Amino acid sequence: MLITNIGELTTNVPIGDDRCGTLTDAAVLIEDGFITWVGQAADAPAYAEVVDAGGRAVIPGFVDSHSHLVFAGDRADEFEARMTGVPYAAGGIRRTVTATRAASDEELRERLAALVAESARQGTTTLEVKTGYGLTVADEARAARIAAEITPEVTFLGAHVVPAEYADARDDYVDLVTGPMLRAVAPHAKYIDVFCERGAFTADEARRILAAGIAAGLIPRMHGNQLGPGEGVQVAVEMSAASVDHCTFLSDDDVAALAGSNTVATLLPGVEFSTRQPYPDARRLIDAGATVAIACDCNPGSCFTNSMPLMVALAVREMHMTTAEAVWAATAGGARALRRNDIGVIGPGKRADLVLLDAPTRVHLAYRPGVPIIERVYKDGVVIA
Amino acid sequence: MLITNIGELTTNVPIGDDRCGTLTDAAVLIEDGFITWVGQAADAPAYAEVVDAGGRAVIPGFVDSHSHLVFAGDRADEFEARMTGVPYAAGGIRRTVTATRAASDEELRERLAALVAESARQGTTTLEVKTGYGLTVADEARAARIAAEITPEVTFLGAHVVPAEYADARDDYVDLVTGPMLRAVAPHAKYIDVFCERGAFTADEARRILAAGIAAGLIPRMHGNQLGPGEGVQVAVEMSAASVDHCTFLSDDDVAALAGSNTVATLLPGVEFSTRQPYPDARRLIDAGATVAIACDCNPGSCFTNSMPLMVALAVREMHMTTAEAVWAATAGGARALRRNDIGVIGPGKRADLVLLDAPTRVHLAYRPGVPIIERVYKDGVVIA
Ligand SMILES: [Zn+2]
Ligand SMILES: [Zn+2]
Repeated sequence: MLITNIGELTTNVPIGDDRCGTLTDAAVLIEDGFITWVGQAADAPAYAEVVDAGGRAVIPGFVDSHSHLVFAGDRADEFEARMTGVPYAAGGIRRTVTATRAASDEELRERLAALVAESARQGTTTLEVKTGYGLTVADEARAARIAAEITPEVTFLGAHVVPAEYADARDDYVDLVTGPMLRAVAPHAKYIDVFCERGAFTADEARRILAAGIAAGLIPRMHGNQLGPGEGVQVAVEMSAASVDHCTFLSDDDVAALAGSNTVATLLPGVEFSTRQPYPDARRLIDAGATVAIACDCNPGSCFTNSMPLMVALAVREMHMTTAEAVWAATAGGARALRRNDIGVIGPGKRADLVLLDAPTRVHLAYRPGVPIIERVYKDGVVIA
Repeated sequence: MLITNIGELTTNVPIGDDRCGTLTDAAVLIEDGFITWVGQAADAPAYAEVVDAGGRAVIPGFVDSHSHLVFAGDRADEFEARMTGVPYAAGGIRRTVTATRAASDEELRERLAALVAESARQGTTTLEVKTGYGLTVADEARAARIAAEITPEVTFLGAHVVPAEYADARDDYVDLVTGPMLRAVAPHAKYIDVFCERGAFTADEARRILAAGIAAGLIPRMHGNQLGPGEGVQVAVEMSAASVDHCTFLSDDDVAALAGSNTVATLLPGVEFSTRQPYPDARRLIDAGATVAIACDCNPGSCFTNSMPLMVALAVREMHMTTAEAVWAATAGGARALRRNDIGVIGPGKRADLVLLDAPTRVHLAYRPGVPIIERVYKDGVVIA
C-alpha cells in the first residue's frame, strides 16, 4: 500500500537540525505491516493499492508509554472534590484497589478493551499498561495477564502504594512484591515500576524493588518527583531505568543526571491539568539535553484522559515545547521510554504505525485543542480507527 | 421516540437548588422534533420507537454562541509564533480579511460546512456565526448570506477591525458599517456585534454601531474587555446587549453592571488557552449573580477550537466553575446569550436538541479532558452526529 499526497510527513528521521525529519509532498510505502520506502510523492514507486492523503499531515502513531488501565470503580466524585479545592493524595489509589479486587476478569477485560479502543481512536498505536490496583499476588498476576492480552508493554507496579492491610508492615509488603508477587507477575510483564514518593515508597525501597525486577529479567522504570522533590530521579538514573515519569519537582542535580543518562524523562501534563499542580519544566530538561517523552498517565484518580492530542496541546501551551518537540516526544520519545526502536519513526524497516490527521500540519494538534482531528490510524499497516 | 434508561439527565429545569435539574434513571419523549415529556424511566409512556441510553448521561445540545467561521486562509504560523512568545494582537485579523476576500463563495461554504460538521460531532446543536472577515459591503453581505444558509444565528460584525484601506479614515469606515454595509447585511443577520477594544473600536464608535443595528432590527452583542480594561461591558449593558463576550478584564463596576442586567457574560476560555492570556474570573461573576455562558470563539487567529467539551473542562480547571455550572453555561447559558428560550433546556415544548455521552455523568466532560465522549447528537430529534 502506498500512502501518497501527504502534505506534511513527520518521519522522526532527523534531517539536519530538524529532529522530526519533516517532508512535504511525501509518500510512504507499506508492505506486510512494515514501512519499506519513504520519500517525495513524485519519486514514489508504482503500487497497486494507493491511498491519497489529500494534502493532509501524517505523523507516527502515538506511543503512550504510561497508563493504568486495569481497574474497576469510579472516582469522578474525587475529581469534582479536587476541583473545588481538596488536594490530590496518592491514598485515593486504595479506593480503586478495593473495587478492582472485587471485579471479575470479564469486567476488567471489557473496561480495558473500551479504553484501548478509545486510545486508538485518538491516534495511539502503542500503549503501555501497568498493574498496581491488585496489590495481592493473585490480583497483580491477573492484572498483568489481562493487560498482556492487548499489549506487550506490560509493567508490574505492585509497588504502587502500600495496601491498607500492610499499613503497619511495610517491609513485609516489599518482601511480598520482590518475592512471590514478582515471581507470579514477571512471566506476563516487560517492566517493573515503583511509585517513589512521600506516601508511597522510599528511595531505598525503590532500589530493592527495581533490583529484584531486574534480576527477574524486567526493565526498570519509575514514578518519581511528582508531588514534591525526592530521590526518584536519582534512583532511576542509578538503576538505568528506561524512563522516570512525572519529573515535576527537579533539582539541578536531577536535571544533570537525566541529561547524562539514557533514562527518558517522561512528562505527564494531563496529571497537572487534572490536579491543578504546577506543570513540569520541559524547557529546562530539553535545553539541558535530556530526552523528553510525553504520555497520558490515564488512570481513574489523578488523570482520566487518554488523549495524546491533548497532551501535545498541553505540552505546547503549558510546558512551552514547540509543536515539533511535543509531537516528537509523543511518538519517538515514547518509543525510547519503552526501549523500542521499531516504532515512533516513519522509516524503512519500522512498523507501519501511523496517523493521518484531518489537518495540513502537525501544528494543528496544538492549534486546535480538543478537536478530534485524528482521521485514520494504522497499526502494522492495518486501519484500527 | 422515547430515550430511556438515562443514567443522569441534565434538564436545566431547576429542581430546588439544582439549576441543572438533574434526574437519574430518566427518560425523554420526543415527538415531531420537540420534547413532549420528561421524567423517571419507570413512569415513561409506552412508545413504539425506544432508544436505550444504557445508563449513560444525556445533556442538552451545546449552544456555542460565539464563532467566526466564514473565512479562508491559514494562521497556524501565527499560533506557533505566539506560543514561542509573540503576543496576540487584533491586527492579525487583517490577514484573514485578505484571504477571505480572495476566496470564492464555494470555498467559504465548504470550509464553513466542514467546521459546522466538526462542531456537531462535538455535541454542538446551535451555533452562532459572525461575519467580520469581509469588511466591504459586498464581502460582509456575502459572509452573512453564506452563514444564514446553515444557521439562523448570524451576527453582523462589520466592526471587527478597521480594514487597512480605512486606517486613516476611521469615521468613514464607521459610516460605511452603520450605513450601506448594515443595509446590505441586515436581511441575513439576527445580531449586530462590535469589537470594542484598544486597536479595534472605541466605546463611542461601539455605541453608534450598535444603535444603528438596533434601528435596523438587529439584537446587539459585544466583544468587550478581552485584551485589557475598557468600556465594552458598560456600553453593552447600557445598550441592553444580549451578551458581552470575553469579559477577561473587569472592574467591580463592570461586574455589578452585569449582575444587575439581562446581558449575559459569555466567557471564551479557549482564547485564553490559545493565547496564554489570564482566564476570566468566572467565580466573581457567578457569585455576584451575573448570568454566565461559555462558548468557543472558534476563529483562525486567537482560538481555532470548536470543542465545547474542552470549554467545559477549561471552565472547571481554569475558571473554577463546578461541572454543573460549566455544563449549564455551555447549554442554557448559551441559549440566553442568543435570547433563545426553545433550546438549552430538556423540557416539554423545547426543541429536541440533546447529546448522549459515552459516560455515566456530565462530570466526565471535565474528568476526561480531550477524550471524544460525545456518543450521539440529536438536533430537532434527528441524529446529526
Ligand atoms: Zn502513573
Ligand atoms: Zn470573537
